[in-house]
Amino acid sequence: MEIVSEVRTFGGRQIRLKHRSSTLNCDMQLSVFLPPQAEHHKVPSLYFLSGLTCTDENFSTKAGAQRVAAQLGIALIIPDTSPRGDDVPDEDRYDFGKGAGFYLNATEAPWKQHYQMYDYILDELPKSVEAQFPLTDQRSIAGHSMGGHGALVIGVRNPERYQSISAFSPITHPTQCPWGEYAFTQYLGTNRDAWKDYDAVELIKAYGQVRPIRVDQGLADNFLEEQLKPEALQAVFDETDGPGAIYLHEGYDHSYYFISSLIEEQLRFHAHYLL
Amino acid sequence: MEIVSEVRTFGGRQIRLKHRSSTLNCDMQLSVFLPPQAEHHKVPSLYFLSGLTCTDENFSTKAGAQRVAAQLGIALIIPDTSPRGDDVPDEDRYDFGKGAGFYLNATEAPWKQHYQMYDYILDELPKSVEAQFPLTDQRSIAGHSMGGHGALVIGVRNPERYQSISAFSPITHPTQCPWGEYAFTQYLGTNRDAWKDYDAVELIKAYGQVRPIRVDQGLADNFLEEQLKPEALQAVFDETDGPGAIYLHEGYDHSYYFISSLIEEQLRFHAHYLL
Repeated sequence: MEIVSEVRTFGGRQIRLKHRSSTLNCDMQLSVFLPPQAEHHKVPSLYFLSGLTCTDENFSTKAGAQRVAAQLGIALIIPDTSPRGDDVPDEDRYDFGKGAGFYLNATEAPWKQHYQMYDYILDELPKSVEAQFPLTDQRSIAGHSMGGHGALVIGVRNPERYQSISAFSPITHPTQCPWGEYAFTQYLGTNRDAWKDYDAVELIKAYGQVRPIRVDQGLADNFLEEQLKPEALQAVFDETDGPGAIYLHEGYDHSYYFISSLIEEQLRFHAHYLL
Repeated sequence: MEIVSEVRTFGGRQIRLKHRSSTLNCDMQLSVFLPPQAEHHKVPSLYFLSGLTCTDENFSTKAGAQRVAAQLGIALIIPDTSPRGDDVPDEDRYDFGKGAGFYLNATEAPWKQHYQMYDYILDELPKSVEAQFPLTDQRSIAGHSMGGHGALVIGVRNPERYQSISAFSPITHPTQCPWGEYAFTQYLGTNRDAWKDYDAVELIKAYGQVRPIRVDQGLADNFLEEQLKPEALQAVFDETDGPGAIYLHEGYDHSYYFISSLIEEQLRFHAHYLL
């Protein structure tokens, strides 16, 4: 991985990287924050998956996560939200194609050649960053909106790889909401049984709650009822009788003004399991 | 002032406003953060003046200031960096015209009709926000780069209006650097004596240090030597024997990664004089 830029923040290193992804068949950028503790010993990692239209820069510049990560000694691994580049097929909409990879492995043409974000996040990315930086193999995973969906899906399916899972305003039940139904039809085809591998509600029914899960959801979120459906996630949390918890926040919306307000709580939640 | 949008963050209200400015002869936008304490009583204000190319949104979304302002009970008043709109003259460069008002009152055509940012920040803006929101008349002023210049100039010239002054990476001596020389020639004409009213180093020589001043400067800042000249400010601090202090930070650059790292220290500095 090639370092594109590096700046100091909160005593640590905020690094932007470029690499050729063999999983995605394209060049990718990502950001990594190494806390000051990484100068002296290996540190655990929190992966943060961003939402529709984002790159690695939204969370890096707006969440205020580095302050707390620097206190706790946790690295932040912040990938892009889809494959990128002129060779990558796209559609002219914000909720599908580039910026909207939905953290799955596409099976349909023309998407399947590049849209393999599930494998990228789960395998290639940890291998690459752990080979280059002083990181332990202790990982947790978090995300926002589409990235909250990604964190829940990847975390629930791979409890041996992640110590804890959290999400801000996640798409909890993409097989039952417009964003998910459109994207899954294109990426995965019309067989809805195959969609269940990427639906947090269905996966928790199937796998249970092996790892602790924390979700924060604003009640003034414009996407709450149509797209996010926290009540579906709460129902499956109740059915499966595990530690999963959804915290509802009066007056907060879907933006980074919400994420920045709660990022400290989510980071301290992960620190309890990572450190 | 008309509320364009409002979201909750850190328990307070992040508000975007639009108003007709009689000083600037144009419509302006700005942002205000009201901490939770403002629900119960009036709170003091910190004005934050942004740098070249910025609007009110850069500081609002990237600095992480609301977290600390909410703890301390300080409102943040975040104006735009120049007059705006199709009627406002401009040049096709990032360091002059729109986004680069330099917080002065222009005396030269065609700029003088709109570019009156000094009077806007000092008079019209406080009157407008204090009429609309629960604010005391206790104010402090801060800024970044061109806005650090603005905070120093407006604060030093008006000690009866501001309790304390701070700046990140300010243009300290604009009469002696390329950014300042170009902008002042256009806005103020070629009589360099008139420029001294907008040069922090010259003003501190003339007015002394009535109010406490704190400056933070990164040592990996690309603009340090050519544009910012902290050594000129340090020299006049030494000459005038006041409390002004410049803190130098190894490895930090000119970006919001620097501002976010130090904003808590600057807010706590102001709180000491505001509360």
